[in-house]
Amino acid sequence: MSTRVGRTLIRGGTVVSSTGRSEADVLIDGETIVAVLAPGSTILGFDVAASADRVIDATGKYVIPGGIDAHTHMELPFGGTAASDTFETGTRAAAWGGTTTIIDFAVQSYGQRVFDGLATWHEKAAGNCAIDYGFHQIIGDLNADSLQAMDGLLDEGVSSFKLFMAYPGVFYSDDAQILRAMQKSAKTGLMTMMHAENGPAIDVLVGQLLAEGKTDPYYHGIARAWQLEEEATHRAIMLADLTGAPLYVVHVSAKQAVAQLAAARSRGKNVFGETCPQYLYLSLEENLGAPGFEGAKWVCSTPLRSRAEGHQEELWQSLRTNELQLVSTDHCPFCMKGQKDLGLGDFSKIPNGIGSVEHRLDLLYQGVVEGRITLERWVELTSTTPARMFGLYGTKGVIQPGADADVVVYDPAGHTSIGVGKTHHMNMDHSAWEGYEIDGHVDTVLSRGKVIVDGNSYLGAKGDGRYLPRGLSQYLT
Amino acid sequence: MSTRVGRTLIRGGTVVSSTGRSEADVLIDGETIVAVLAPGSTILGFDVAASADRVIDATGKYVIPGGIDAHTHMELPFGGTAASDTFETGTRAAAWGGTTTIIDFAVQSYGQRVFDGLATWHEKAAGNCAIDYGFHQIIGDLNADSLQAMDGLLDEGVSSFKLFMAYPGVFYSDDAQILRAMQKSAKTGLMTMMHAENGPAIDVLVGQLLAEGKTDPYYHGIARAWQLEEEATHRAIMLADLTGAPLYVVHVSAKQAVAQLAAARSRGKNVFGETCPQYLYLSLEENLGAPGFEGAKWVCSTPLRSRAEGHQEELWQSLRTNELQLVSTDHCPFCMKGQKDLGLGDFSKIPNGIGSVEHRLDLLYQGVVEGRITLERWVELTSTTPARMFGLYGTKGVIQPGADADVVVYDPAGHTSIGVGKTHHMNMDHSAWEGYEIDGHVDTVLSRGKVIVDGNSYLGAKGDGRYLPRGLSQYLT
Amino acid sequence: MSTRVGRTLIRGGTVVSSTGRSEADVLIDGETIVAVLAPGSTILGFDVAASADRVIDATGKYVIPGGIDAHTHMELPFGGTAASDTFETGTRAAAWGGTTTIIDFAVQSYGQRVFDGLATWHEKAAGNCAIDYGFHQIIGDLNADSLQAMDGLLDEGVSSFKLFMAYPGVFYSDDAQILRAMQKSAKTGLMTMMHAENGPAIDVLVGQLLAEGKTDPYYHGIARAWQLEEEATHRAIMLADLTGAPLYVVHVSAKQAVAQLAAARSRGKNVFGETCPQYLYLSLEENLGAPGFEGAKWVCSTPLRSRAEGHQEELWQSLRTNELQLVSTDHCPFCMKGQKDLGLGDFSKIPNGIGSVEHRLDLLYQGVVEGRITLERWVELTSTTPARMFGLYGTKGVIQPGADADVVVYDPAGHTSIGVGKTHHMNMDHSAWEGYEIDGHVDTVLSRGKVIVDGNSYLGAKGDGRYLPRGLSQYLT
Amino acid sequence: MSTRVGRTLIRGGTVVSSTGRSEADVLIDGETIVAVLAPGSTILGFDVAASADRVIDATGKYVIPGGIDAHTHMELPFGGTAASDTFETGTRAAAWGGTTTIIDFAVQSYGQRVFDGLATWHEKAAGNCAIDYGFHQIIGDLNADSLQAMDGLLDEGVSSFKLFMAYPGVFYSDDAQILRAMQKSAKTGLMTMMHAENGPAIDVLVGQLLAEGKTDPYYHGIARAWQLEEEATHRAIMLADLTGAPLYVVHVSAKQAVAQLAAARSRGKNVFGETCPQYLYLSLEENLGAPGFEGAKWVCSTPLRSRAEGHQEELWQSLRTNELQLVSTDHCPFCMKGQKDLGLGDFSKIPNGIGSVEHRLDLLYQGVVEGRITLERWVELTSTTPARMFGLYGTKGVIQPGADADVVVYDPAGHTSIGVGKTHHMNMDHSAWEGYEIDGHVDTVLSRGKVIVDGNSYLGAKGDGRYLPRGLSQYLT
Repeated sequence: MSTRVGRTLIRGGTVVSSTGRSEADVLIDGETIVAVLAPGSTILGFDVAASADRVIDATGKYVIPGGIDAHTHMELPFGGTAASDTFETGTRAAAWGGTTTIIDFAVQSYGQRVFDGLATWHEKAAGNCAIDYGFHQIIGDLNADSLQAMDGLLDEGVSSFKLFMAYPGVFYSDDAQILRAMQKSAKTGLMTMMHAENGPAIDVLVGQLLAEGKTDPYYHGIARAWQLEEEATHRAIMLADLTGAPLYVVHVSAKQAVAQLAAARSRGKNVFGETCPQYLYLSLEENLGAPGFEGAKWVCSTPLRSRAEGHQEELWQSLRTNELQLVSTDHCPFCMKGQKDLGLGDFSKIPNGIGSVEHRLDLLYQGVVEGRITLERWVELTSTTPARMFGLYGTKGVIQPGADADVVVYDPAGHTSIGVGKTHHMNMDHSAWEGYEIDGHVDTVLSRGKVIVDGNSYLGAKGDGRYLPRGLSQYLT
Repeated sequence: MSTRVGRTLIRGGTVVSSTGRSEADVLIDGETIVAVLAPGSTILGFDVAASADRVIDATGKYVIPGGIDAHTHMELPFGGTAASDTFETGTRAAAWGGTTTIIDFAVQSYGQRVFDGLATWHEKAAGNCAIDYGFHQIIGDLNADSLQAMDGLLDEGVSSFKLFMAYPGVFYSDDAQILRAMQKSAKTGLMTMMHAENGPAIDVLVGQLLAEGKTDPYYHGIARAWQLEEEATHRAIMLADLTGAPLYVVHVSAKQAVAQLAAARSRGKNVFGETCPQYLYLSLEENLGAPGFEGAKWVCSTPLRSRAEGHQEELWQSLRTNELQLVSTDHCPFCMKGQKDLGLGDFSKIPNGIGSVEHRLDLLYQGVVEGRITLERWVELTSTTPARMFGLYGTKGVIQPGADADVVVYDPAGHTSIGVGKTHHMNMDHSAWEGYEIDGHVDTVLSRGKVIVDGNSYLGAKGDGRYLPRGLSQYLT
Repeated sequence: MSTRVGRTLIRGGTVVSSTGRSEADVLIDGETIVAVLAPGSTILGFDVAASADRVIDATGKYVIPGGIDAHTHMELPFGGTAASDTFETGTRAAAWGGTTTIIDFAVQSYGQRVFDGLATWHEKAAGNCAIDYGFHQIIGDLNADSLQAMDGLLDEGVSSFKLFMAYPGVFYSDDAQILRAMQKSAKTGLMTMMHAENGPAIDVLVGQLLAEGKTDPYYHGIARAWQLEEEATHRAIMLADLTGAPLYVVHVSAKQAVAQLAAARSRGKNVFGETCPQYLYLSLEENLGAPGFEGAKWVCSTPLRSRAEGHQEELWQSLRTNELQLVSTDHCPFCMKGQKDLGLGDFSKIPNGIGSVEHRLDLLYQGVVEGRITLERWVELTSTTPARMFGLYGTKGVIQPGADADVVVYDPAGHTSIGVGKTHHMNMDHSAWEGYEIDGHVDTVLSRGKVIVDGNSYLGAKGDGRYLPRGLSQYLT
Repeated sequence: MSTRVGRTLIRGGTVVSSTGRSEADVLIDGETIVAVLAPGSTILGFDVAASADRVIDATGKYVIPGGIDAHTHMELPFGGTAASDTFETGTRAAAWGGTTTIIDFAVQSYGQRVFDGLATWHEKAAGNCAIDYGFHQIIGDLNADSLQAMDGLLDEGVSSFKLFMAYPGVFYSDDAQILRAMQKSAKTGLMTMMHAENGPAIDVLVGQLLAEGKTDPYYHGIARAWQLEEEATHRAIMLADLTGAPLYVVHVSAKQAVAQLAAARSRGKNVFGETCPQYLYLSLEENLGAPGFEGAKWVCSTPLRSRAEGHQEELWQSLRTNELQLVSTDHCPFCMKGQKDLGLGDFSKIPNGIGSVEHRLDLLYQGVVEGRITLERWVELTSTTPARMFGLYGTKGVIQPGADADVVVYDPAGHTSIGVGKTHHMNMDHSAWEGYEIDGHVDTVLSRGKVIVDGNSYLGAKGDGRYLPRGLSQYLT
């Protein structure tokens, strides 16, 4: 038995998995779930509750595996500034929102060696996190040395790497580089993650728009047209088809890109896609097009899409049909003052990113309330599939004996008000979700057996979270 | 505690669910699973194994939820004879093969009232089954009285009904009838199941072939051309689209029909499809086209499809991509002597059906061995999804506290030889699967806590199985 | 030289074909075009103009082959009344609008023999028509005798027959009948024309709507949902695929039906489709949904479709992309008083049909004006393709030596006002196109060399038109 | 009257256009067709034949517009050598085969100015050609100066330019360059022609194959995988979609690329594609895979595709369905000795190209003989559509008054044996078509009224052909 956190029984709740629900109690011993039991405190006459150190009453509530956010960028240097959440502040905010694992992106910058980049990220995170964390590896300089380094990534617990078809001169890989990396991906089983936008074409349009005096945040969305996301998505799919690499496209926002992914999946390809809450709820017209410089809050890439074109509805449908497989946040927060305002008068200088790590579970739960997705699909999209996709399943993503005791008690009768001064623990001077009123509430959060959120109290501490080495994706076969 | 079967601990195995595997022990008290435990026999110091009446060692083996065969026809009257397995012989054979639940089709014949048909099926099954059983309701005479009766089906635990676009003069419903039934389906949530073949067109072709002297079993496959399956599938989909009915197409065999289902699912429709082992392994050329009258063994509808056209490979792929959702058997056995031979000289008189209820798990497991599907997908296709689809989940289809203790211990290192005189407990004078050699073996089968198959011994008894009232499909929202 | 009409030279115009335009003169001798000449009146020194009996100055105007309306119903008995245009009035109206050929539908009624039906149509038309006419054959009673009769149709100059998937109890053929007819079509090369709507399903909806008191013309459009057109279109395609029959779907109005046709064509099938002006311009909301009983003017089947769903735009695009191949009118006029008003209080009793035979060329020409189609495509859609499709090319549909001198001089600078008391020669008490103002004007119409329309004068006579025996479609190979 | 060639009457033949055939005589006065006449030598009593200088008897033969080969590379410098046909030899060979117009590609090389490149091509061609010729402009260095130059192309009679997504370091344009050029294309109406293969990816594969010792011609086809053609085709389509540019993809060889083009056309986009005879008849396995170095004869890009994968059949079908619009040759001949053999031991050094300019009409006519395409479609694919596509219609591509008298008399009862020493006038030491036996024969060829081929005699002269300034494509609206 672990002396750290003792024995906890979560009693009386409805355990929800990705396939169904059951009335069951969950017994935790130390950091680990040791049993899932029929309701009632006894087993073969043995009084379990009496032997527990702590009993959490979950009556009328959902007991779900802790959320896994497979796409965050804590402290990411970008455009002369850095994402405003540190691993400390960002993971704490995540915990408040029921997310107990993040997979952040370690960065190999241009000119740097891969493992040096990874080491830097370990330094940033170690001892600072509220919850467990893993790393994907951004390959920002895909040369012979990087290709060789990729052979060692899995030994480091990094089973996925990310390339960029956007951002020429920064993270950009050309098709020759992508092809070589995907050959490595096919050989090693490492998941190829892709930022799929045609960067060179976008840069032409950005230059033309600015030259025409179209400098407002809105034009960020115009320059990054859906055609250029669809195109790059298809290109990535075909290079993956040629090489046999598994492919995971990040932050899908255009319905046409979804159609490309769906078509490839229908042909039996190992092709996957995530979307993010911002693409489900927000839009080009309403948010990027907000008066004045307000739209800067929602400058992210891929951009928010036109509601008139119906992307948001199609994305919700794709979550239901499994044409997209999971929801991450692409959490990459910047403050308006001192960060976003770098792009006053030039949208291309606005740091790209939105902060949502705290609100993912709540926002997606609205899809359940509105009948868009089932309760089971909510768990699947936010926890079980991320675990299966990125080699964490068994340890994370499921409530079963042997799994880490990352458990959230969610109250469907509760309520959450999002906004600065309300529910807001991210290090930002605004919220991209200001004013959202959510049915449902994260009541209790356990991270490896320790209660870190209890109602409105934060009981965790910096350094609670550990590094999570990951295995290969469960979906490769 | 149930006095019937006592306390059983299944220890040391790998519990496989539809989403992953875990090393865990399963504790059964009476007919019900009461706990899933971390390996080792103790919980908070309590010695579980010592308190059990029976301990099953599953070391090195898979512990899976018992198979659910959602499509069987025990004792079905057809073409002047009847399916050769009774509920007694058929369910016992199912149990031998690791299937612990069947959903059989109660028949309302033309001129009969719906509940009279259902009552007849209850009489056939009651007291005779080795395993639990539920009923779908065939509506063979869709009139105003039948439509009214459908309102009462759910109260009887029947949450699905089946219509036939084939077999004019027997079970056939025309489009006007189908439309009315689907309106009822949309209103009640009852799943519309469909035999999707254009019967009137088939009957023309059958008549023409016979007139040309083409009387061999092979022409059964020619008359039932893929175009006529694809057409009817699409028609059913559009009528479901119009009415809002959930639709489940049975025994899909043509790749073009799969494409229609996939397209509808991509549009967000509640459309589902099953296939059967015969369509995955057997073919028009090799089986229906066997010399002489041999092909009669494989006369079933929809028919086996051409291997040259690649249906089998596409069906396997559709299982992987979830374009088809589950695998049933359409178990409907007939002996060659005295039954199939009714069609000597006239293929249209050969009773339609193949017996596979015993071999579904084994045959599908070959897909795991050959890398076509994952181990998890195997469990999903044969147990979890059937339970979710047909309102049994929680009771069946999953290993979790509160669920019926229907559990199979499957040995991946075992071997199964299929054939008469080898593994064959169905009441048939031949096997459609003669000579198949299978990696893997069903070692132990528990039905509601009772061990009914133990190695090569059958320990169950006639009447072990109970009627299972079912709820609505989990997939409706 | 024909003594009937002498020698005519059409000089100075722009001859427009389906592939381009040229400045050329057209020389007619008697009923036939004998030369197309470079501008100027001489050929190798011979003064052609001087030798002509009549010179028509077409300077600044288009010289086009006379329109061919491949779908009319003169004097059609329907719902207890009959289409209000006789062959005399209807063909004269057609001539006014630049149409010099119609292909009308001879009807075999239920219980009648095919050739008796055809004979009746010959009687109706003979000696009454202003322009040349051919017949398609409706097979309203598809029995063994009818199938045999079809072998003789081509000898009668009838190279196409039409079946109905709608109107059970009237013209309806079931799938068994359709299959047999299509086998005949494949063998003989006769084009199978199809009214593709699922009649049995429509009749259920009609009955339910009326029972709910929804009796206005608008509900005609609701009962005939697009799903039932799409479904029937696909069904016809698959039966054609199975048999090898060439298939032509009449009056396509739903964009989803177009998509089915396009998909079949992409697979290389001989599948064709027409639409009609009403489906390009009018809508469910604005016309069928007009206040009171006004909508009855636009009750036709297939029905007008929802503009909100975008069918009209998609149909225009399909004309551009050749996913639909031609435009006919389905001319079937009824007066409001004494005919349409039969359906006051019961939309199902409103005679189905709209009169447009006079306005097809003008209405389509607006597509040229608005940049939707090219000038060449206009000629192709209204004349050349109908001729090629239905075995008239060479005689009709093209301006070339040897062709019948059916020629229209069209003034792009002219103007046409449509409406009762304005341009309106059809025998109707209203116009479905009241108030349409058209750029362009039919100036001169020649039918087999005779000027029958000259500006605002009608110079033709009853009986000018002859029966046109037709050959097989040019598109069969 | 032109004194050059006098008056010619082509009498008794069947004039075939893209829409049909007619028995008609063609009268030529000087360089121009002046009349198309009903058969017989008189018009309104005037004896035309008697007034002609020459009468060609075309009885039993087809009279068709001279072929237009829209894709040739005479004297093209490539890989350290140059295409072996000069404008003199290449156009003479074309004439022998019934082609009376070529559109060759003027080249702007890297570092060169656009109009300097064009001037060079004028110098090569002027005074040397047997038939009329126009130019497309290759933009091999897409910079600001080139973009400006494009504004002047149409004034030079060049209405189309070509970019390369292949050949990095030679002709390659990246996506930023393509985007800018397409913006120009959309603005000016110039057709964007595209060599659609992903060059950077191909170069990686080439390097890897050579490093593995896979140096035979066969590996040329492996390196240029269909995925890389499909990908580039889709990318070009999406950039065209974004900019509004009309797009024409050259030498399409992969069926998957056809599918992309077809999908874009179905969406109403101005997207077009050509294929070449080699892709219809020859294959990766049989030709590129010929023993030893033999395969070098068929090294061209895009490469020949696998017959097992069925590309050839799909391409034929796409010609029938109009998913591809025309057939050019991409004529770019190299001798085996001294040219192709540069690539002995390294397939990447084999000059890319096949010579077919002489055989296009004959080869395509086999499609008519075999029932793959109609006679009309043959004319459309080889003459009428090229004229319409590239701004030549009216002058070329049609037999009508005012058109250049480029006419071919084709004998369907004739025979043509292709091969060195047989029918072979191209400047090559081998034929890619050695041994092909063709039904049909080019009997007589007139170029602007002059008979240049008469049976087996060549009557033309160097310099007969003139430069053809072209207008915009007829398909833009």
